[in-house]
Amino acid sequence: MTYSDKLISYYKIIANDCVLGVSLDCVIFGFHDTRLKVFLLRWKETDEWCLPGGFIYKTESVDDAASRVLYERTGLNQLFLQQFHLFGDANRYDRDDTWQRQKMPMPFSGAWPDRTISMGYYALVDYTKVTPTADFLSDACDWFDVGELPSLLYDHCRIINVALQTLRLQLNWQPIGLNLMPEKFTIPELQRLYEAVLGRPLDSRNFHKKITGLSILTRLDERRTGKAHKSPYLYQFDQLNYQKALINGNLIFV
Amino acid sequence: MTYSDKLISYYKIIANDCVLGVSLDCVIFGFHDTRLKVFLLRWKETDEWCLPGGFIYKTESVDDAASRVLYERTGLNQLFLQQFHLFGDANRYDRDDTWQRQKMPMPFSGAWPDRTISMGYYALVDYTKVTPTADFLSDACDWFDVGELPSLLYDHCRIINVALQTLRLQLNWQPIGLNLMPEKFTIPELQRLYEAVLGRPLDSRNFHKKITGLSILTRLDERRTGKAHKSPYLYQFDQLNYQKALINGNLIFV
Repeated sequence: MTYSDKLISYYKIIANDCVLGVSLDCVIFGFHDTRLKVFLLRWKETDEWCLPGGFIYKTESVDDAASRVLYERTGLNQLFLQQFHLFGDANRYDRDDTWQRQKMPMPFSGAWPDRTISMGYYALVDYTKVTPTADFLSDACDWFDVGELPSLLYDHCRIINVALQTLRLQLNWQPIGLNLMPEKFTIPELQRLYEAVLGRPLDSRNFHKKITGLSILTRLDERRTGKAHKSPYLYQFDQLNYQKALINGNLIFV
Repeated sequence: MTYSDKLISYYKIIANDCVLGVSLDCVIFGFHDTRLKVFLLRWKETDEWCLPGGFIYKTESVDDAASRVLYERTGLNQLFLQQFHLFGDANRYDRDDTWQRQKMPMPFSGAWPDRTISMGYYALVDYTKVTPTADFLSDACDWFDVGELPSLLYDHCRIINVALQTLRLQLNWQPIGLNLMPEKFTIPELQRLYEAVLGRPLDSRNFHKKITGLSILTRLDERRTGKAHKSPYLYQFDQLNYQKALINGNLIFV
């Protein structure tokens, strides 16, 4: 089966078995080397990138579809996954332009609805623990800095921007640090995450004072070694206190 | 035209002109007499209540449709209106049961999609300033305490509960007080709102200290008179500082 045949067969299945006119897109965030990253797939045989997304089977809930699509397109599962915005504009993007950039081989426009409403989900992953892989629609996948995105298909640039705004607003009542940080980390490393999400530097002394005052961190008997001058202590989240603080919205400190 | 004819004509227009399989539902919150209220419509010629909801024209954005539907069904416009959750379960409610309770007169099941995904919006209104009215699908409308809801159609009980949970989580970064309170209020009155949303009593001294410490209130040269013992000062929100506090998530204080 050629790639073109596979693509035609894929869209035929969708047109038959899925809810038409509704899709979903997932913005997967990771944190690495002081940068907030987003995971993208490269559309096969093109230089165009996009978010992992897909469709909802007729008998499937939209939330279940989001987990399944994410697994099918990236190999990742059991992620922290949240609805964040419905992208419902009548004209979300220039479809002719997008299909041309995608080199869409088949004329499926007859059966295809004129517009697609897309539910946006964001996922948070521990970058050190996951190795996403590209699916058959893609010939590459990679992490990109949120500030340095490549050419994106559809309205995926806007979707990423809205996801990022949501992350900023939700820093204090979603387990964002918990899901994005590795198990053990130093306080300066956690500060880098907050700075990356907020897009601005924070005062170190103030950050240290506030974060340790929240009782959500447990200091370990280990230090990060190998640094030139200091060997800072490692911490991990106190899951119980972290959840309590989230419920009360008490993670606010920046 | 009989009501039954009107109903058939209404659904015919929807089946022709609207995005099929997607609807929206609006939870309108108001605050009155120390209670958090939700606005409901009574389905014509029945004892069943429901949220104001409707459909999206093919050429209309989902957000625009939410404003329009709200206006058409309640007479209210220019409201603070926010997406909060997509209700996307494959079986959201028992349709046969619901249609029976609604006394649906026509057999439109042929053209009607098997499932409908609904986008939930919540609206916040100043109870003292609005007089919602029922539309032709309804023969009554009223405000209900969120804790004392009548028999509801569809999955509207769940939709209201999820909206309320969202309101609780968003107390610190959405202008909830600003939109639900009348222009002038006393601090105990504002405390009642927070208590109504959170569903638990707050310590008065603590509340007073924290809310006045946020610089979001302006004390007026007026007092609430007519009370037995005290005549507390009236306040209004300092809109500029309020918006700043929201951006920083700094309304947290309970």
